[in-house]
Amino acid sequence: MKALLLVAHGSRRAESNAEVGRLADELRARAGAEFGWVGHAFLELAEPSIAQGMGQAAAAGAEELLVLPYFLSAGRHVVKDIPDEVALGLGEQPQLRVSVAPYLGAMPGVSDLLLATALRLSAGGA
Amino acid sequence: MKALLLVAHGSRRAESNAEVGRLADELRARAGAEFGWVGHAFLELAEPSIAQGMGQAAAAGAEELLVLPYFLSAGRHVVKDIPDEVALGLGEQPQLRVSVAPYLGAMPGVSDLLLATALRLSAGGA
Repeated sequence: MKALLLVAHGSRRAESNAEVGRLADELRARAGAEFGWVGHAFLELAEPSIAQGMGQAAAAGAEELLVLPYFLSAGRHVVKDIPDEVALGLGEQPQLRVSVAPYLGAMPGVSDLLLATALRLSAGGA
Repeated sequence: MKALLLVAHGSRRAESNAEVGRLADELRARAGAEFGWVGHAFLELAEPSIAQGMGQAAAAGAEELLVLPYFLSAGRHVVKDIPDEVALGLGEQPQLRVSVAPYLGAMPGVSDLLLATALRLSAGGA
């Protein structure tokens, strides 16, 4: 079974963390047959951690896990901290096959999304 | 003339700031007739500032400006700091009609983008 783990930075503001949870809920509701489990995790300041999220996915029966970094730029968090945390999680779940997607800011559709939003608002008289 | 200002947090890493500039370039290349000017600005740590970006838009002949916050959550930056900076810019460009779009994380298409990326990578054997 394939699983999806949305990974965000984490915030001291509970509402920001709850936003990430709701986004994961949306992904889960629409993941269809491709992903049998969808969850979220935080790099810091909130739980579950990435390793905990990987444990949850494994406990749910995941054999493959795709990590989706919810980050806008290729800073230290994306380049080093997320891979380090994934490696930590793999120490506990060595059977899990894990891959890490490009971070959100590097996904080819970001400019489409921004432009579509701008055009929609502009047409509405923004 | 309508203009578009992509506003990012700003980073000490020049490469992260350059990423934002490239994203603005992409938006400019595809904005078509709707936006006669497209630029970018930073909330902190880098230039141009939001007020400077608004000045550039006005100098280019913009009458309406749509600010696109390149942020993932509704933290203090989105809720207070960007509006404060926009107000500062309006002090210098009172003739500019400015509106602020929802931040990226609140744009309805974000989950579509994440899911499309996940499905594409998963199909590719991720």
